[in-house]
Amino acid sequence: MENFVTNPVPIADRPRVAIVGAGVVGLSWTGLFLANGLSVTICDPRPDVKIWVLSGLEGIRRTLHELGYPFEKIKGRVFFEEKLHNAVAAADVIQESIPEVLEAKQMLYEKLERFCQRSSLILSSSGSFSASLITKKMKCADNVIVGHPFDWPHLLPLVELAPGARTSRSTVEGAISFYRKMGRQPVLVDREVEGLVANRLYRALVLEGIHLVQSGVISVDRLDQIVSASLGPCWAAAGPFKALALSLGLNNIENCFDNLRLDGDAVTKVRHQSVSYYSYVPMEDLQKEWIDRQIAILKMSDHSQAFRSL
Amino acid sequence: MENFVTNPVPIADRPRVAIVGAGVVGLSWTGLFLANGLSVTICDPRPDVKIWVLSGLEGIRRTLHELGYPFEKIKGRVFFEEKLHNAVAAADVIQESIPEVLEAKQMLYEKLERFCQRSSLILSSSGSFSASLITKKMKCADNVIVGHPFDWPHLLPLVELAPGARTSRSTVEGAISFYRKMGRQPVLVDREVEGLVANRLYRALVLEGIHLVQSGVISVDRLDQIVSASLGPCWAAAGPFKALALSLGLNNIENCFDNLRLDGDAVTKVRHQSVSYYSYVPMEDLQKEWIDRQIAILKMSDHSQAFRSL
Repeated sequence: MENFVTNPVPIADRPRVAIVGAGVVGLSWTGLFLANGLSVTICDPRPDVKIWVLSGLEGIRRTLHELGYPFEKIKGRVFFEEKLHNAVAAADVIQESIPEVLEAKQMLYEKLERFCQRSSLILSSSGSFSASLITKKMKCADNVIVGHPFDWPHLLPLVELAPGARTSRSTVEGAISFYRKMGRQPVLVDREVEGLVANRLYRALVLEGIHLVQSGVISVDRLDQIVSASLGPCWAAAGPFKALALSLGLNNIENCFDNLRLDGDAVTKVRHQSVSYYSYVPMEDLQKEWIDRQIAILKMSDHSQAFRSL
Repeated sequence: MENFVTNPVPIADRPRVAIVGAGVVGLSWTGLFLANGLSVTICDPRPDVKIWVLSGLEGIRRTLHELGYPFEKIKGRVFFEEKLHNAVAAADVIQESIPEVLEAKQMLYEKLERFCQRSSLILSSSGSFSASLITKKMKCADNVIVGHPFDWPHLLPLVELAPGARTSRSTVEGAISFYRKMGRQPVLVDREVEGLVANRLYRALVLEGIHLVQSGVISVDRLDQIVSASLGPCWAAAGPFKALALSLGLNNIENCFDNLRLDGDAVTKVRHQSVSYYSYVPMEDLQKEWIDRQIAILKMSDHSQAFRSL
């Protein structure tokens, strides 16, 4: 990431955006960018692309409206271009969301290098392949970075940012700035890893869940009830490590690792980081904030009907 | 569970409750039961038990008030008994929450059998030991069941119910009825398993998280941000399997298991159960409800400031 910064990527106030690949994820990005007042050019080979996008935007509009985005007239702000060259030539930002097929991605990025401006920011939605891998056939890949959402990017705010080996620092900064302007919460990972963080955590939990269902401990629906009555609200209000620190106290967070047969280094590292990140304000303040968020979430969720006196 | 039902456990409208072990969890139960209008007798050997309980209830009172419980006068409804016999002799329900030391639990349950009424419902908060194990020294254990909360039971609604080998069906039903009356969400597991379900799922995710921190992919605070901007709100609104069905469609949920190297049986079982549980109403209705819950949760949480236009 400290490699040559020859290509600063300043994000225009209203960047021109191209969506390459308008499946479920590309459509969701389209809605988000439109709701932020931008113009969007869509490039996708499916023959019914116009109907798919324009009808799909209706459902997305409702969600964005509820989230506080004034999703006004989109007429004159959505364009369709069959030819990649026409779609991306004038784009400041390209959000690529084509299917997860490595060869197709690599061929596409080779073309993007030829068709895009050198100053364009190229963001890949890929959760399966790293920026280093998909840019393999590019001569210069300093303006490419993975910007991977979770489920629908117009709904959940997370965008995991994973720079490739050749991604420039200014591209990282440009991507952070762009996604923040779009009201998203970009989180930078320090190293490319298969599946990125949220998917890997999802997978770890689901694997244990499948094991519990398969071994007859619990059914699918009751496991779902368990999670949304405990871990879900807990983790919506604070991530898993912060929640451990807040429920056990910073000095006791190792206790919960006792049964995990972990090597000491890993536990020390997690403890050290937890202490340094979560001791900047008094623990009672963090805890109050956490509890208040859980209360608000519980009142909003399925469990509201559970709260009633005898 | 189909064993002799000699001892039906009808829950009185206002059962007399004894709390045996008033640590953090016992205190939380105390608050919940008081907020539901019950009288509570506390038995704990710590010398400062009265100060600890009465001052601790202040913070709990605020949370319960926010959750809609009228936590009015508790004077005349909290009793302290040093002697176990005096504490439990007249109790309809005993919620045991002593430290997780197997020998201590087994000795306690041997005494409870002698001191309690035969019709009492004995609920153990244990997340480490099964009902079968802690009741080992009892002659008859049909009225004992594990009722294990997640974090603080006055806040999060989950109570995992795990009957032991000798637990009667009427005890299971009595426990479900009691916790529902207390505004909790009891979920029955089909088989005793170490750690129960929520803890095991927590552990699986945290283990992967520790691995990612240890291998330099992400820091503790950014992993926490990732979870509370994605998995947390997603799972607070629907459990992990329901979320997969709703985002991928019931016919496609296996797709996400492709990379998991699972045996076919497990995937078939999860798919079959998902279809049978989640096709009872139109998928679009379930999906709309899920999205609406996520919107409400996101608006309540940390991310509200993220939603703003350019």
